[in-house]
Amino acid sequence: MITVLSGGVGAARLLRALSGEIDPAQLTAVVNVGDDLVLHGLTICPDLDTITYTLAGLSNDELGWGLRGETWRVMDELDALGGEAWFRLGDRDLATHLYRSQRLAEGATKTEVTDELRVRHGVEVTLLPVTNDVIATEFITDEGRMSFQEYFVRRHHDVVVRAVEVTGAASARVSKEAMAALTDASRVVIAPSNPLISIDPILQLPGVREVLRDRRSDVVAVSPLVAGVALKGPADRLLRELGHNATALGVVDFYEGLVGTWIIDEADADLVEAITSRGVHVEVTTTIMADPQNARRLAQVVLG
Amino acid sequence: MITVLSGGVGAARLLRALSGEIDPAQLTAVVNVGDDLVLHGLTICPDLDTITYTLAGLSNDELGWGLRGETWRVMDELDALGGEAWFRLGDRDLATHLYRSQRLAEGATKTEVTDELRVRHGVEVTLLPVTNDVIATEFITDEGRMSFQEYFVRRHHDVVVRAVEVTGAASARVSKEAMAALTDASRVVIAPSNPLISIDPILQLPGVREVLRDRRSDVVAVSPLVAGVALKGPADRLLRELGHNATALGVVDFYEGLVGTWIIDEADADLVEAITSRGVHVEVTTTIMADPQNARRLAQVVLG
Repeated sequence: MITVLSGGVGAARLLRALSGEIDPAQLTAVVNVGDDLVLHGLTICPDLDTITYTLAGLSNDELGWGLRGETWRVMDELDALGGEAWFRLGDRDLATHLYRSQRLAEGATKTEVTDELRVRHGVEVTLLPVTNDVIATEFITDEGRMSFQEYFVRRHHDVVVRAVEVTGAASARVSKEAMAALTDASRVVIAPSNPLISIDPILQLPGVREVLRDRRSDVVAVSPLVAGVALKGPADRLLRELGHNATALGVVDFYEGLVGTWIIDEADADLVEAITSRGVHVEVTTTIMADPQNARRLAQVVLG
Repeated sequence: MITVLSGGVGAARLLRALSGEIDPAQLTAVVNVGDDLVLHGLTICPDLDTITYTLAGLSNDELGWGLRGETWRVMDELDALGGEAWFRLGDRDLATHLYRSQRLAEGATKTEVTDELRVRHGVEVTLLPVTNDVIATEFITDEGRMSFQEYFVRRHHDVVVRAVEVTGAASARVSKEAMAALTDASRVVIAPSNPLISIDPILQLPGVREVLRDRRSDVVAVSPLVAGVALKGPADRLLRELGHNATALGVVDFYEGLVGTWIIDEADADLVEAITSRGVHVEVTTTIMADPQNARRLAQVVLG
């Protein structure tokens, strides 16, 4: 059994690649919910949805978010009404949020709803929101406090960040299913998701760091940076703004004490010595999953 | 200034006809919100939306609800997900509910949101939800308690009703705008909406009956029954089940003490004497608005 700490797109692609190498039923994703939001009365879980859609073969890989062949009837009309249309919700995608919001209102947990949607989409990988409690990743910026999606989508992460805070994290409880997935897996993988805003909200939940620290030799992390650049999103920029080294080495230090084996890209082979000196094992391969052959090779190294 | 106590379709058609005869800016609809609901996290106001869409020329008059040329992308997908798809929400219609839900979450009142949507749709008639508080018309049936839409849409009003209750009505406050519309209008019209479930929830709000009683001679009501039959919906059946006379006379008695002038259909001309004996003035005309000429004639009688 393999458990993958997951953000959105990078994790989804790693999970898809891993699903090709082992029985998907042996894979569990413990997924960030720090960028979940309530908008128009709807509870939206971007990372969970990205993973579900990707594993169901429905994701729009060109756009990098949402569903393939999506239509925009509702958003176009909402725009015409003068509504908040900056967070683009496609028509089919909206059905997911309507379904989830209704089930939550009926008393279902986020864990239960995620599983229902997983089954409906024929996804075999177990998908677990890390917590059923509400947490919210927020940005203290030069222009004031912003919600995750305000920073990420509305402002296209083009504003200087002074700090990231995950409100609610200290008092939230990791779900019992997610905690079991962390403690019972033979290997815990940290996906190449944004360390600061996709993985750290998971790590901030009480008990998670302790579990990883205790079983550090079973923890494998894939670097989200290649030659100091994030393949998607603002990880590199955020690392710099928050005083970290925007390289694979900076990420290694950010996860200090939690990881036994690091997988870094060939472009960062010159960092092997420095990373090894941190007391971790290092594997060098391609970490860029755009090409299916590369993704496959990366999955094999993660499982190796 | 004319104020119309309004349910959905029947009121919308009367308001449309009245708009053709006088300046729409002189018309105000005080609208029932007893069948408003929260579904999928969205606040839906069926009567307000029916009136807005009808006056904007967007209503689907064949279907009797919703928008013309509507599409069903979201509902089709929600259905495929196994969600609650019995309350059909079209794609364009959904934008209204997203807009409203977001604005309410931001702290706007239902009165404010209704006015914003009215302006966006170019509607000139003033539209006022009777209250900003939450009230809910519910049915005590042979099969237990049901919400309005459960009874009306899900069960197609095909279940025996023992009682109708408007929860929250006793403690709800009529909005100051709606109360001013009731007290300041030169004439108050009761639309040919369902007396028991569209108009009564308005009458149950503290102060409304008193205002109508005090100015009874200014109150004109249009009978919703023609020869004992409701043109749309279960008004006749409900009147019978709840022990009323399912004729125009039964409705006259239901509104006892509140109405100065009754407008009944030609088909009910034989009831003139009986109704007059209740101490009200009676006008006989066609009340069936399907034909535009008839609607126009009815509007002229209402204004006469």
